[in-house]
Amino acid sequence: MGVRIVIDTLGGDNGAPVCVEGAVEGLKNHPDVSLILTGKKKELDSLLSKYEYDKNRLTVIDCTEEITCHDAPVDAIKHKKDSSLVVGLNQIKEGKAEALISAGSSGAVLAGGTFIVGKAKGVKRTPLAPLLPTAGNPSLLIDCGANMDAKPEVLVQFAQMGSIYMRNVMRVKNPTVAIVNVGAEEEKGNALVKATFPLLKECKSINFIGSIESREIPEGKADVILTEAFTGNVILKLYEGLSKMLLEEIKGAMKATLKSKLGALMVKKSMKKTLSRFNASNKGGAPLLGLKGLVVKIHGNSKKDEVSSAIDQCYRFVRKDVSGKISRGFEQQAEEKKAEEKKAEVKTEE
Amino acid sequence: MGVRIVIDTLGGDNGAPVCVEGAVEGLKNHPDVSLILTGKKKELDSLLSKYEYDKNRLTVIDCTEEITCHDAPVDAIKHKKDSSLVVGLNQIKEGKAEALISAGSSGAVLAGGTFIVGKAKGVKRTPLAPLLPTAGNPSLLIDCGANMDAKPEVLVQFAQMGSIYMRNVMRVKNPTVAIVNVGAEEEKGNALVKATFPLLKECKSINFIGSIESREIPEGKADVILTEAFTGNVILKLYEGLSKMLLEEIKGAMKATLKSKLGALMVKKSMKKTLSRFNASNKGGAPLLGLKGLVVKIHGNSKKDEVSSAIDQCYRFVRKDVSGKISRGFEQQAEEKKAEEKKAEVKTEE
Repeated sequence: MGVRIVIDTLGGDNGAPVCVEGAVEGLKNHPDVSLILTGKKKELDSLLSKYEYDKNRLTVIDCTEEITCHDAPVDAIKHKKDSSLVVGLNQIKEGKAEALISAGSSGAVLAGGTFIVGKAKGVKRTPLAPLLPTAGNPSLLIDCGANMDAKPEVLVQFAQMGSIYMRNVMRVKNPTVAIVNVGAEEEKGNALVKATFPLLKECKSINFIGSIESREIPEGKADVILTEAFTGNVILKLYEGLSKMLLEEIKGAMKATLKSKLGALMVKKSMKKTLSRFNASNKGGAPLLGLKGLVVKIHGNSKKDEVSSAIDQCYRFVRKDVSGKISRGFEQQAEEKKAEEKKAEVKTEE
Repeated sequence: MGVRIVIDTLGGDNGAPVCVEGAVEGLKNHPDVSLILTGKKKELDSLLSKYEYDKNRLTVIDCTEEITCHDAPVDAIKHKKDSSLVVGLNQIKEGKAEALISAGSSGAVLAGGTFIVGKAKGVKRTPLAPLLPTAGNPSLLIDCGANMDAKPEVLVQFAQMGSIYMRNVMRVKNPTVAIVNVGAEEEKGNALVKATFPLLKECKSINFIGSIESREIPEGKADVILTEAFTGNVILKLYEGLSKMLLEEIKGAMKATLKSKLGALMVKKSMKKTLSRFNASNKGGAPLLGLKGLVVKIHGNSKKDEVSSAIDQCYRFVRKDVSGKISRGFEQQAEEKKAEEKKAEVKTEE
């Protein structure tokens, strides 16, 4: 069977055109992918009419509602039943698709993923895990979602999910995991980090390398950067905000004098590549992990390339059965724990 | 009486020479400042012999020990009694100085400040509060110190201390205070932020403007950025690490081709100013607030300018009696609270 992916075409800053462009590209790249576009049928049909593509592999579902950033996420998911996001997520719930891509409101995507698609068996919480650009390969920052004040056991699951994701989707062999901390030594940290550290050391299914200080994150020192959602959110948004501000300041400096303007023209080409790497729009987007399907949140200002990269990501995710691997791993652990507890009970009774 | 400031001349990356240079500059700028240099007397005397300065206002105390980054902070403070840091802090304790500047180990400076100088009356915890460069004026990030898992009441005190500091030392009229959060709305956040938010709203002595998302920090949206030490540490170190990495990537891009190299020469002058603003070494350093005196931690790689700026900062701090203002404010609050409780008791008895 092919891989079926929904694209929510409303809610992003650049509207349906970039979604259609990305979709056509995705169909070209993957002969066994089918796409479902949710949104305004009339507009979508008109946009699609400009392209050549395999019409058997693309369906449009007309939706009368739209969720915006101004909507309260949970309310919107509950009440806007005919929105492109809710209709799309229901496709996964009903077994008609395996994944969904949305550039819409983060809050609504998070809430919708959890409420409509639902957690996979054995998963305690569902983390949002964007890829951060670094001096080396991108790192997965897990969690930036809505799981405030998560417990140590939950963080250990996040480390495991992140590792499975990086191995299967990003093709990283034996991905390293580090926990965000205020120093390198094991005795450093707040209560949560201190309680989580020994559990990570014990966890056999991950390649735990210890603490990482935030100044080392941009160096690309670990494949999976583990942290609780509040800190993760702070890291992600500071990354975006500081990069943007620094690049603007540099552009400003280059325009300061006639001489610098001429110089800027000469460095433009070389710099463009660097600057684009640190743009807010991370290729592929942020997966919401631990669901019965895959939900990928792409940046609000995503363009064609981001949509088509997200399709690649969904494709590998489904083909490699990442959801199944996550779920089976946790179920096995739960069974092992039960067996151990039973053993301990028997021993006590003896 | 003049203002007496100790400079710990050991522990920084650039050694005693930058401390001596900065000290001579400080004496020139402030005719009513006296300085005490702790460190290796022989080296200091030799360095000082190259400068013209008012010898009545500079004393050298010879120390036989040095605290390094490899020492366990609390142990070092307890056992290295003749180190330049401990000897210097004892000057404040014994009433022979009002402030100390050190480029040495952050952990040792924090531990030493609290154990040797001691907390001012009414102060619950002593926060470390560096100034962050922004697109606007610098913002005070409070707390980045060792107060992991602080309580809401402690954060409110930090907001008050930060405001007093910005008003008196940085000369900001009615400084704004914002708490780091994952969204703008009051109902957002982790348990700590949710519990602290209403207390900040009630606090009459600060100009609280609500939540700030980390992406807004580089824009300079608030004078005092309030957060718990773990997150503060993450913000501070990511600020340093990401700025460093981005600037290196840009420099690298400029050197990519012959054309870009020529262009780089032409933009160099305009860019230098921008780049230096975002260098790790923040002018003035990070004060450890809430002590009976002032302890300022300057960056390990500080040069003459940072030392002399830190002297300016200490001078204004002492002249404006910031310690006294902080302490009296908290004592008054404690008394008011007691009076209110008594009133409530009387009412209950009636």
